[in-house]
Amino acid sequence: MIDERMYGLGNAPSAIRELFAYGLKRKAEIGEDKVFDYSIGNPSVPAPQKVADTIEELMKLPPVELHAYSPAAGIPAVRQTIADSIARRYGIPAKAGRVYMTVGAAASIAISLGAVTNAGDEVIVPSPYFPEYKVWIETMGCSIVEVPTQVPSFQLDVEAMGAAINEKTAAVIINSPNNPVGAVYTRKNLEALAAMLEEKGKEIGHPIYLISDEPYREITYGVEVPYVPTIYPRTLVCYSYSKALSLPGERVGYVYVSDTMDAEEADRVFFAVAGAGRAHGYICAPVLFQRVAAACVDEPSDVEAYATNRRILTEALDEMGYEYVQPDGAFYLWVRALEPDAQAFSDRAKQHELLIVPSDSFGCPGWVRMSYCIARETIENSLPALKALKESYDAE
Amino acid sequence: MIDERMYGLGNAPSAIRELFAYGLKRKAEIGEDKVFDYSIGNPSVPAPQKVADTIEELMKLPPVELHAYSPAAGIPAVRQTIADSIARRYGIPAKAGRVYMTVGAAASIAISLGAVTNAGDEVIVPSPYFPEYKVWIETMGCSIVEVPTQVPSFQLDVEAMGAAINEKTAAVIINSPNNPVGAVYTRKNLEALAAMLEEKGKEIGHPIYLISDEPYREITYGVEVPYVPTIYPRTLVCYSYSKALSLPGERVGYVYVSDTMDAEEADRVFFAVAGAGRAHGYICAPVLFQRVAAACVDEPSDVEAYATNRRILTEALDEMGYEYVQPDGAFYLWVRALEPDAQAFSDRAKQHELLIVPSDSFGCPGWVRMSYCIARETIENSLPALKALKESYDAE
Repeated sequence: MIDERMYGLGNAPSAIRELFAYGLKRKAEIGEDKVFDYSIGNPSVPAPQKVADTIEELMKLPPVELHAYSPAAGIPAVRQTIADSIARRYGIPAKAGRVYMTVGAAASIAISLGAVTNAGDEVIVPSPYFPEYKVWIETMGCSIVEVPTQVPSFQLDVEAMGAAINEKTAAVIINSPNNPVGAVYTRKNLEALAAMLEEKGKEIGHPIYLISDEPYREITYGVEVPYVPTIYPRTLVCYSYSKALSLPGERVGYVYVSDTMDAEEADRVFFAVAGAGRAHGYICAPVLFQRVAAACVDEPSDVEAYATNRRILTEALDEMGYEYVQPDGAFYLWVRALEPDAQAFSDRAKQHELLIVPSDSFGCPGWVRMSYCIARETIENSLPALKALKESYDAE
Repeated sequence: MIDERMYGLGNAPSAIRELFAYGLKRKAEIGEDKVFDYSIGNPSVPAPQKVADTIEELMKLPPVELHAYSPAAGIPAVRQTIADSIARRYGIPAKAGRVYMTVGAAASIAISLGAVTNAGDEVIVPSPYFPEYKVWIETMGCSIVEVPTQVPSFQLDVEAMGAAINEKTAAVIINSPNNPVGAVYTRKNLEALAAMLEEKGKEIGHPIYLISDEPYREITYGVEVPYVPTIYPRTLVCYSYSKALSLPGERVGYVYVSDTMDAEEADRVFFAVAGAGRAHGYICAPVLFQRVAAACVDEPSDVEAYATNRRILTEALDEMGYEYVQPDGAFYLWVRALEPDAQAFSDRAKQHELLIVPSDSFGCPGWVRMSYCIARETIENSLPALKALKESYDAE
């Protein structure tokens, strides 16, 4: 008989995906330019020219060589290039043997959870958080333990996280720059987290692994994004090229098991990651885009485009009197809903053709998320609708 | 703490992968042309020219459109093209809404198992079988029940399969054309299976789903490969373009939930497939190769090359006095080991630089699998080694 949990997951798409689908339908009805779709993190900045150039170059390889299976962990030269880049950028002795290529950050997190948890364990997630974390944690037979971050800085509440840890705690997932709020955890905040995890790990008698979800690492606005393995050794970095290279549909990323960890322990964690990849049916990451990722490993992201979007949107919201969190990274704006029920606010926004995601699905009431990675023009054209929405509340 | 099962899976690669890795090492030591690597199903036939032409054409699309996320189930136009192709080729009313794009057949099977099993269930697998089935079945918390096929035809032993069914039986996996033996199940054999599954399903009070793993569908030597959904409605077809288009590393395939099934039931199964894809962290199948697959959906596979390899190899083995199963499809030759212990035979073959996979890992003692999808030249050059191996046994 079919698995009812899987049926439920397939039949009830995430709030984000649901709104995205509504947007596609609505655009077909009234025109692409009449709908202001802030629902999804699909970059509007094109992939760097080097992506196309690399593909053109790669197509000269013999097809049998180009499209062949790679080893499960990835093409050796690709893993080496990525390890070298990590070593060069963050000053740690990163080894190719600790880089496991994946079909994107979602896969990276799912298999990292598979590697460092056992059924019955608990995984701590600071809220608000990317809602699929809950799905992947529960798929492993584990429970999610949500710990609210500090409002309005949205930095980690390390004390509250510490209080939530018990013998069942296997791992913590962090995501900085953060989706949905745009916060970037400070070095001080991460150092406090590391010290707490060290201490609590000793207290409960087993290590606590830190899963660091970093698809937005390259997208920041003038702040430092500390490299987590340099602060807490027991880290699995989950990286993706979806946002950095604007390749969200091509599905390529990696898990990096930190070389700052004890070498024997890192070996064990790495094999568990590889085992989880195998168990999930990931044969290898798509090989053409493994090679593209390696060729573009130090290609800069076009942060300027997002910075301009951010400025236009926040200046307009300031003027209209919306309350929001100034984002230090990623391309999401976390805006206070104009009524306590964020879903009701999102529904009312729809009447103005504004698609914004209610915060409830991120494990937090009373806010909405606006993805401003969209076309500049859409943002500019949406401003009257945002104004009308605000005024409709002011008039009440 | 790390998951010991995952650690074990990652630390102990499959016999196939292990031999493949040994081959890479050995080739580096003594030269590419000195090692006769029959270990892995990496096609030596290049992808059709249309693949490269399609990629060149696609690269003219705006990158933001080309590389964007697709819906989780795939690009609507791609799903429609595939459904139309199924309808045209097999005469069933295939709908796009029942096609779920995946990162290859492995993913297709893993999520099909996720959809139609619950922890504690049993899944019947005719042996010999592709060894990863066991990994994916056990990952779902289920047990594999191996039922030997008939020797020497290697057709399904439907009576024995029926006897293995009980209330815990959730699904059956079949793979025709078959890896590792090259058998293609006849229409009569499949009809007997369907009748038995219908009857047993009534007896145990719940449906039994048939997961039909079909990456080798296009690679056959003059025999019919009946389309399973036309024979048994409760079928999930797991397809891949890895072998059909020689794109094993690019990871693209699909699950097709048969439209011959009751529509309401098919909807439920489809949503469960979608849910399992979500739970596994598959955001979407790689979009560039989704489009390539659609463009090449009816591109013929270069079966002629494999047919010639098959002829050269089997004629030589006939002359040397090896016993083997004449393959009707796929590109594997199932050869009787020259001693009862297949692992010992494979080890001895290594001394002649012949890499052949012992049958034990396929759930069957006493045979070896030779992948003849390799370069023609390698086969020709390997013949003296195969002869010497045979003679070394004859001399005993």
